[in-house]
Amino acid sequence: MSRVYVIAQGGGPTAVINQTVAGAALAARQKHPDAKVYGARHGIRGVAGGDLVDLSALSDADLRRFANTPNSGLGSTRDKPDAAYCERIVAGLEKVKADSFIYIGGNDTAGTMGILDEIETGPMTFVHAPKTIDNDLVENDHTPGFISAAWFVASAFLSVDLDFRAMPGIYVGIVMGRHAGFLTASAAARRRAGEKDGPHLVYVPEAHFSPEKLIADIRATRETYGRCGVAMSEGVATEDGTPLAERLIPEERHERDDHGNLQLSGGDLGLALQVAIAAAFPKVRARVDTFGYLPRGFSGLVSEVDRREAFDIGRFAVESAESGSGSVALQHVDGQTALKLVPLAAVAGKTKPMPREFVTAAGNDVTDACRAYLDRLVPPRPETWTPFV
Amino acid sequence: MSRVYVIAQGGGPTAVINQTVAGAALAARQKHPDAKVYGARHGIRGVAGGDLVDLSALSDADLRRFANTPNSGLGSTRDKPDAAYCERIVAGLEKVKADSFIYIGGNDTAGTMGILDEIETGPMTFVHAPKTIDNDLVENDHTPGFISAAWFVASAFLSVDLDFRAMPGIYVGIVMGRHAGFLTASAAARRRAGEKDGPHLVYVPEAHFSPEKLIADIRATRETYGRCGVAMSEGVATEDGTPLAERLIPEERHERDDHGNLQLSGGDLGLALQVAIAAAFPKVRARVDTFGYLPRGFSGLVSEVDRREAFDIGRFAVESAESGSGSVALQHVDGQTALKLVPLAAVAGKTKPMPREFVTAAGNDVTDACRAYLDRLVPPRPETWTPFV
Repeated sequence: MSRVYVIAQGGGPTAVINQTVAGAALAARQKHPDAKVYGARHGIRGVAGGDLVDLSALSDADLRRFANTPNSGLGSTRDKPDAAYCERIVAGLEKVKADSFIYIGGNDTAGTMGILDEIETGPMTFVHAPKTIDNDLVENDHTPGFISAAWFVASAFLSVDLDFRAMPGIYVGIVMGRHAGFLTASAAARRRAGEKDGPHLVYVPEAHFSPEKLIADIRATRETYGRCGVAMSEGVATEDGTPLAERLIPEERHERDDHGNLQLSGGDLGLALQVAIAAAFPKVRARVDTFGYLPRGFSGLVSEVDRREAFDIGRFAVESAESGSGSVALQHVDGQTALKLVPLAAVAGKTKPMPREFVTAAGNDVTDACRAYLDRLVPPRPETWTPFV
Repeated sequence: MSRVYVIAQGGGPTAVINQTVAGAALAARQKHPDAKVYGARHGIRGVAGGDLVDLSALSDADLRRFANTPNSGLGSTRDKPDAAYCERIVAGLEKVKADSFIYIGGNDTAGTMGILDEIETGPMTFVHAPKTIDNDLVENDHTPGFISAAWFVASAFLSVDLDFRAMPGIYVGIVMGRHAGFLTASAAARRRAGEKDGPHLVYVPEAHFSPEKLIADIRATRETYGRCGVAMSEGVATEDGTPLAERLIPEERHERDDHGNLQLSGGDLGLALQVAIAAAFPKVRARVDTFGYLPRGFSGLVSEVDRREAFDIGRFAVESAESGSGSVALQHVDGQTALKLVPLAAVAGKTKPMPREFVTAAGNDVTDACRAYLDRLVPPRPETWTPFV
């Protein structure tokens, strides 16, 4: 029995998101030599508009080449479909006689799939395949794309820490992450116990933040280490839950996607911190870098484990699609990574913050439990020599 | 005859600056088994203050480990010595009976060495070893540290270009470079001829810049490609020669080093551009990332060629130091890299901008001649699949 699959990519890209497409296309071909696999351009927009690429026409070698290219090669979208849009998506799927729709994305994408699955579509199945550098999907131990992005962040903080050891001062690196601090926490993945390594302070959305506390923490850290490295999530929020960045961005530049998410990655937070630090520590070398888009699909550092897991998820999505709808979850069972299909509703619209025990009581660093989790995922620190200063 | 060398690192670090220290220490040991090689902590400050590390005590294996650690492992300084400071440096060198002082740095460092060389110090020699990610030293084809930093920049722009192909918009990446645009130009090193690859616009300090022209250029590029990628040097300057960033940073936050260089890498330029682009292109996805310190000593991407050249320069500095003072220059002769000792005065205080023929007449892109130069240096583009969008 031949089968028809439609596959699409939603939301922000990762370094390995095309692996999942290739994994699905190759698995479909392996199971059903005459299977059709269509890639939709720009996510559900392409499904609704019939803007499809025939991935079945590509050779295995070309699919592998596609897999190894970072960022969404089919194009992406942040569209949040209303009822009429959903009908157009279903009509688009029916037009090509799709048996299954596989949509790669985060929790917004799982939400879209949940809505589609409730529409009467006969035996058609809807499988959500996870990806997000934020690592904030429930049911998942970690998500494809996170390891590579974390590797970038860990490498960057190792580098700037050595830089600020050579010429002491204050360094703040602001890292993507609206609700979950995993990616920011990975800044500490290469800090060695008992050494003076930075970042010395880590602020994540899971703990309350205050600029006054930051200045006091920096002051104390400089007294101990002579310098201070800070990793901060773009989503750090004050006690009332409002992200600091949101208060700093003037209303007229508020940019929200269809899902209501405000874009936080502008330079407003960084510049405000630069000004505050310059005022509190005059004449001290101080830099604030906003990492922005650099970590999320960086072509220079792509983890092999991340590649393989993303690929396997595509394969598993195709296998699962024959039996029903759901969300593929990357779990950690008995020290092993295991894939499992969970209900779409279990993942849709939910955000997984870091566990409480990953953040210190003072709210300005990560714990050993967090380090142990990261050590399992992030590629190890390269062999370095402890500087003479 | 035993010899005593003092070696130090000045200015901003690079990913390979410790290679030069290790190359010198290993060469000294090879030539004179009982040679003493002292590393000065924090550049001339350590020389003047007698704050030295005995590098001769390290094993070859440890020196190799030190070499492979990015950023100045001896510590650095931006001190510009006056006459009294120079006397203290000389006294510090005489105290350890130094035959030669090797100082690794950019043109400010060469300038310091020129001043020291004019002081009556008997047979003591002063050798400047080049390094700078800015690639702006005269007499040099390129400088140690540049290739690795350029690799980062090229990789980052490849990634964000694929990102903005998946979800079109406007992306601006601001790259270090006060007077010379080499590092910014390397953003274009992975752009393929005849493809839609970005960055589509490249602005360097060598051409006049105007914000109005930028907006017009972005508008035209979007009409052609549906998106626009921009690489911009932090040092872009208007017709009167004033860097745009300098005008944007309020006086009270002006931070200058002893050499009079104003720190440009804050977020002011980035945020000003973000505001200008949002006003000109409302509702369009637009991001401005300031790369800041990320490219310059990134531990994740270190070029093997860069490592080797930096190491060889350390070795060559030690060999040259026996015959006289000078600046080691990395030249390109008959398709080969060649090292040569040139007079300190030839390098001191001079900046090499990109050749005129590296920038297009419109001043908003690099030329094929520039691409040919970069292709010779920057590691090749990884094999990627052209996105379906």
